[in-house]
Amino acid sequence: MGSKLKTAVLGATGYSGQELARLLARHSRVALPLLMRRGAAGSGEASDSLFRGSNGHFPVRQFSWEAIEKQGTELLFLATPHAVSRSLVPEAIERGLRVVDLSGAWRLKQEEHRAIYQFKDENAAQAARLDAQAVYGLPELNGKCIPGAALVANPGCYATSVILGLAPLMRANLVDRERGVISDSKSGVSGAGKEPTARTHFVSVADNLSAYAVFGHRHTGEILEQLGLQTSQFIFTPHLLPIPRGILSTIYVHLKKKSTGAEVESRFREFYQGKRWVRILAASKLPEISYSLHTNYCDIGFSLAPDGERLVIVSCLDNLLKGAAGQAVQNMNLMYGWKEEEGLA
Amino acid sequence: MGSKLKTAVLGATGYSGQELARLLARHSRVALPLLMRRGAAGSGEASDSLFRGSNGHFPVRQFSWEAIEKQGTELLFLATPHAVSRSLVPEAIERGLRVVDLSGAWRLKQEEHRAIYQFKDENAAQAARLDAQAVYGLPELNGKCIPGAALVANPGCYATSVILGLAPLMRANLVDRERGVISDSKSGVSGAGKEPTARTHFVSVADNLSAYAVFGHRHTGEILEQLGLQTSQFIFTPHLLPIPRGILSTIYVHLKKKSTGAEVESRFREFYQGKRWVRILAASKLPEISYSLHTNYCDIGFSLAPDGERLVIVSCLDNLLKGAAGQAVQNMNLMYGWKEEEGLA
Amino acid sequence: MGSKLKTAVLGATGYSGQELARLLARHSRVALPLLMRRGAAGSGEASDSLFRGSNGHFPVRQFSWEAIEKQGTELLFLATPHAVSRSLVPEAIERGLRVVDLSGAWRLKQEEHRAIYQFKDENAAQAARLDAQAVYGLPELNGKCIPGAALVANPGCYATSVILGLAPLMRANLVDRERGVISDSKSGVSGAGKEPTARTHFVSVADNLSAYAVFGHRHTGEILEQLGLQTSQFIFTPHLLPIPRGILSTIYVHLKKKSTGAEVESRFREFYQGKRWVRILAASKLPEISYSLHTNYCDIGFSLAPDGERLVIVSCLDNLLKGAAGQAVQNMNLMYGWKEEEGLA
Amino acid sequence: MGSKLKTAVLGATGYSGQELARLLARHSRVALPLLMRRGAAGSGEASDSLFRGSNGHFPVRQFSWEAIEKQGTELLFLATPHAVSRSLVPEAIERGLRVVDLSGAWRLKQEEHRAIYQFKDENAAQAARLDAQAVYGLPELNGKCIPGAALVANPGCYATSVILGLAPLMRANLVDRERGVISDSKSGVSGAGKEPTARTHFVSVADNLSAYAVFGHRHTGEILEQLGLQTSQFIFTPHLLPIPRGILSTIYVHLKKKSTGAEVESRFREFYQGKRWVRILAASKLPEISYSLHTNYCDIGFSLAPDGERLVIVSCLDNLLKGAAGQAVQNMNLMYGWKEEEGLA
Repeated sequence: MGSKLKTAVLGATGYSGQELARLLARHSRVALPLLMRRGAAGSGEASDSLFRGSNGHFPVRQFSWEAIEKQGTELLFLATPHAVSRSLVPEAIERGLRVVDLSGAWRLKQEEHRAIYQFKDENAAQAARLDAQAVYGLPELNGKCIPGAALVANPGCYATSVILGLAPLMRANLVDRERGVISDSKSGVSGAGKEPTARTHFVSVADNLSAYAVFGHRHTGEILEQLGLQTSQFIFTPHLLPIPRGILSTIYVHLKKKSTGAEVESRFREFYQGKRWVRILAASKLPEISYSLHTNYCDIGFSLAPDGERLVIVSCLDNLLKGAAGQAVQNMNLMYGWKEEEGLA
Repeated sequence: MGSKLKTAVLGATGYSGQELARLLARHSRVALPLLMRRGAAGSGEASDSLFRGSNGHFPVRQFSWEAIEKQGTELLFLATPHAVSRSLVPEAIERGLRVVDLSGAWRLKQEEHRAIYQFKDENAAQAARLDAQAVYGLPELNGKCIPGAALVANPGCYATSVILGLAPLMRANLVDRERGVISDSKSGVSGAGKEPTARTHFVSVADNLSAYAVFGHRHTGEILEQLGLQTSQFIFTPHLLPIPRGILSTIYVHLKKKSTGAEVESRFREFYQGKRWVRILAASKLPEISYSLHTNYCDIGFSLAPDGERLVIVSCLDNLLKGAAGQAVQNMNLMYGWKEEEGLA
Repeated sequence: MGSKLKTAVLGATGYSGQELARLLARHSRVALPLLMRRGAAGSGEASDSLFRGSNGHFPVRQFSWEAIEKQGTELLFLATPHAVSRSLVPEAIERGLRVVDLSGAWRLKQEEHRAIYQFKDENAAQAARLDAQAVYGLPELNGKCIPGAALVANPGCYATSVILGLAPLMRANLVDRERGVISDSKSGVSGAGKEPTARTHFVSVADNLSAYAVFGHRHTGEILEQLGLQTSQFIFTPHLLPIPRGILSTIYVHLKKKSTGAEVESRFREFYQGKRWVRILAASKLPEISYSLHTNYCDIGFSLAPDGERLVIVSCLDNLLKGAAGQAVQNMNLMYGWKEEEGLA
Repeated sequence: MGSKLKTAVLGATGYSGQELARLLARHSRVALPLLMRRGAAGSGEASDSLFRGSNGHFPVRQFSWEAIEKQGTELLFLATPHAVSRSLVPEAIERGLRVVDLSGAWRLKQEEHRAIYQFKDENAAQAARLDAQAVYGLPELNGKCIPGAALVANPGCYATSVILGLAPLMRANLVDRERGVISDSKSGVSGAGKEPTARTHFVSVADNLSAYAVFGHRHTGEILEQLGLQTSQFIFTPHLLPIPRGILSTIYVHLKKKSTGAEVESRFREFYQGKRWVRILAASKLPEISYSLHTNYCDIGFSLAPDGERLVIVSCLDNLLKGAAGQAVQNMNLMYGWKEEEGLA
């Protein structure tokens, strides 16, 4: 089997970073990962949280290139804010590391979509090269490009649910783009990150539901690019659910021509044939968030109007697994030629 | 001030019935209501629940026409399943009572929409007369017909949120019906009733979200009729939220011609001018479920796309108040010529 | 009826302060209160929150003695951290204001109990005078001292539930103090305040329960003083519940001599005879948090062991009402000779 | 490695049964289990629930001895109501099966404790023999008797948390029994079973907390027997938490003589030395429910009063794992001489 892969996780104290640390720690082809945080350690928070499910705990060190050098890191995971990723990735690539970046820093190919992030690159030419090189790490769509990639941009959690729900019909050109595509998406609070804010306070979220960032959410660009949609053809409305984790996207499209449920179902089944981490429900069934919770699955179901044209697609996943850390491991598996399910089953 | 109105509530142990009993008990123009249930009393459940917020509790008796006769009931509220309402209302009207029915029994004017309820009327001609007579009790739209009504059909909770969110633009003919209207609605669990089922078990609902009854929810007919929409022009997708109460509807429309946010806002403000129980938020703000919880308000906000055509409307209310018992009291206030806010402020 | 009382609330944007503002705004004997915050206004947060349940919103101004002077404030409510209360109350009293302080600043008579707060008084003699003068504002126990008080120290939320649950038996000397008194208390998250922290983040609280501050919670001193217990005779264990509001205290005592449930029940009923805001449940029934939620009630029930000696008392209340703002209004009512229930029913 | 163990689960559609089916399905030494239910299949509920986390689903058949015979079952798990277990186990043992029973049917050695279950045995002598033979399946205490057992009575979920929290001190005779032992325990709703009832309805549980069955919970007997306590020496108060799963027990004892935190901690550490599924926290730390959720751990921490005598112990576990299905697998591992952690890590 050879020696184990040496990985490091920067941002190992955030929700995605913790989940990733846990997955890597039990992955049979990966050595115990080097866990790092940007700020000074010592709060104890990290170890408490990582304590869950473990008999001990993993130390989380302060980030330094020296620690990475010393460990002999081959693959670096970044579970950091996009500005941090944007600033660290160029050096990581120069140092010969491969990178899976869970932030939004390298997901977008079109300048108009990148604008929303207001990146401040020190070396614009270098950043542009990396923008071009980076592979959008959605294994079900880009599985062929991921094995050779030096830099994999792990998709956004919302984006994964929406793109997987739409890709089979969009790529087969069955959707009437002109009539508009809508995703009404709902996410648990871990998607908003671990930073305590007025918005993530228990009392603000419990017994409540709110929509936010309508016509202005950062994941919109990824969805447009991956599905070949124009800005004017797509509405994305995220909502904050009073649950810790999980995403459900309710997606509305018009089909170009009348279809039957069986036809739609077989489109989905054929498209995801052999894909380990997408499950298609039977024609009349819709997934619930609980189905995919604590798994790496994206579950997809649909309901077709009696007119055979109007279609409601429901797509569910766990935002910390298929929407973040699980997908990052799936990408790693592809990058190193392992089975897609290793460390995830 | 004269003598107080004599009211009775049948179904006083359900969620809406309890809320109604509480509202009537503190309404200054109403005598202590006669509370009734259909089954035998004695479970103690009713008194326990009514205990909340009261220093004693209200007895809930078994239903009989004699009890109604004896009390001298003038106005009968039905918080019963639609089949029960369908069977009792004809006799109530014959006995000279006025009725506010919280069920779906008398809300629909068109046979095609009534079909979903599969009513089994003993006297079809009589039922047809009542179908024709019944006033759809949405005070903000039908305020003129309610004062003289013998039978007020209190709207569905989902329907109230959707119709109020859409009426200002639909009635002014500003919405492009052909491009389709969508309401992605989310409701707390009390909307599913008090009957314990696998679906309402705490473990099924908590940490979860699910869509249901897509292209087949009973409230669809009311919405179509009140807004003048065709079946093919409207999609309604209800979801079950892990919260006890509250509804948020996210509504998607295309405007016929480009507008500004200020124009849309003033449409809403003008339409609801003087309406005590609808609040319009400022142009960029969206309501959350918590804003209207435990109140009789329907809160409405919107977000207009930069193209000035695509509009997302968010409408929130408390399903047991503006969506049921509060609206029933509002209807009673109109029926007896009182201020719309009496007993609700 | 004369003119209305002029009140001001400092700390009107916290949970207790908001609740208090709402109660005062609808109290028929009180003018619209002057609402203040310590920091600069402008976050908009306050108005958003106060929006709930109101058709407009109340402006919250920055604190100044000038604003108080200008309004002609007679009664000042402080819903501020204890250090702020400790520093402001001396001047307020000097200016001739009456004060109801919701913080822990003036609740304790014994220096050993005050130590935990580490007060830093500028004028120690003045502070000592106020410590002596302040009346512990638990109306059911100290109802006679409150009417004449210049400074009322509104009790802690936990303390209210524990003291009311124990007082009837402790004051009649029926409890075996030597065998120890235990309160295992559980509180909703609003009790931890509005400040966003890692501990109040939705993801930390949801699906969880934790004990904290065992043998070291600040409310312990109040309980000991009011019940005449020694430190060694009492254990208080608070827990953080995944709910927004409400407290349930499960209290364990040994009776000095064997009793029947009927005897215990009548002790409770006699003690709280005529007390508007305490409800005693029948002998075999225990209150739940939901019973008292959104009311000013403290609900008390108990279960006596077959041996007639070991007693479990359950005491429930809404921490923002009977545990804070509601009790503050109840104290105001007593201070001004009004009925205890005014503005609370 | 030899051939895999043939197991069957009766009651595979309940919460514990489902969890057990999942654990067995991935246990490397166990063949795919035979899953059975008592009633007729066909509701689809079972497969939906088992769908979670799996790419397909497991069929759940109606119970029959023939199916067990045909599969060649060696070990039968019962996740059934106690009356069903009481009636089926005698035949299972006669047929030469080994049994792990998750119900309360065989946990109690003393007739006085069994009385609460009101067993109706067809063959009293046979039942008495099994009562005597049955091993109380708490591996950390009875690890030596489990390997040879034909019938293992899997402990109650509450009982596991309380006994493990107390055993190190009770067995070393360090606790003053005369002063009384109290466990104030709190459980998630799955502990109340899957049957939809008024009590498990989402609206009853959410935003609420309630105590129940004080001085009368069925798990009390197990705790008394395993710890050698008299009825008069122990109070057990269970509470229903608004969370799906997890138990936290707050336990109060007096030590016979003054101790230090370090002494208490080392008692716990020595007692559980080498025990894979108990974690002792450092002296000042208390576990939270979230720490052990979705794991087979029981986490234990404590806080000692400054007087060195009064001790608060906090014990947490996942009621469906260490409190039910996980412990059943742990027992199986011991019965067949495998490592305690197999299939659970």
